Amino acid sequence: MKIYFAGSIRGGRDDKELYLEIINLLGKYGKVLTEHIGDQTLSAMGEDGPTVEYIYNRDMAWLNEADVMVAEVTTPSLGVGYEIGRMEGRQTIPILCLYREQDGKSLSAMIGGNNNLQIKNYKTIQNIEIILEDFFKNIK
Amino acid sequence: MKIYFAGSIRGGRDDKELYLEIINLLGKYGKVLTEHIGDQTLSAMGEDGPTVEYIYNRDMAWLNEADVMVAEVTTPSLGVGYEIGRMEGRQTIPILCLYREQDGKSLSAMIGGNNNLQIKNYKTIQNIEIILEDFFKNIK
Repeated sequence: MKIYFAGSIRGGRDDKELYLEIINLLGKYGKVLTEHIGDQTLSAMGEDGPTVEYIYNRDMAWLNEADVMVAEVTTPSLGVGYEIGRMEGRQTIPILCLYREQDGKSLSAMIGGNNNLQIKNYKTIQNIEIILEDFFKNIK
Repeated sequence: MKIYFAGSIRGGRDDKELYLEIINLLGKYGKVLTEHIGDQTLSAMGEDGPTVEYIYNRDMAWLNEADVMVAEVTTPSLGVGYEIGRMEGRQTIPILCLYREQDGKSLSAMIGGNNNLQIKNYKTIQNIEIILEDFFKNIK
């Protein structure tokens, strides 16, 4: 199974350690195409490719190749939102969104109000472990 | 002409005055369907509808009805990214993205590296006025 993991890069790297932990958990279920999201040296400047066109084309190729999408949606990110919108256009791909509640903020209505997505709230990495188990059990 | 203006709500309201100014400029070219983005009373909690499902369905109906999209992409936002991804799926719709450079940050590669979008950097509202004039001249 090919997994497209989406997490914020240029939107902000506050959750980069968590992304790496999620990617490690996802490895149990298949191949994570976007492992670089967990690269701890990657900053919000976005050094993950020689040019933005290169990054866009690489990520879109992965997006079109993936069997399933898991997005961490706590940090607002144009790229993550865009990728969810494009993946939804493929129609048959299961999309899981992981969200950690924040004080004074709330999840985008375009994500939280979208019945085509599976939105799961979590607090800890242990919660995510169980959410992923359920998600992949229902796919197979 | 029906215009879908996209700007951050739950991603953060730092640019809400600017969104209102852009909406006022857009009024010269057509009907802005998403005028509420400029509502100065709207916070990052997102009080623009009774439920998230209501907001999602309303905004998607507007998105499918629009002839053109103008997105302000300086504040990272899941909703704005999602809307760009969905609008791009419609293929025939011209999409203009307005971006103001920020210190220590950079525009998402999924936007900046995407040749299907027209990306324009600006510094002032006067710059935007000229950018919009050019954009709409080439559409008609």
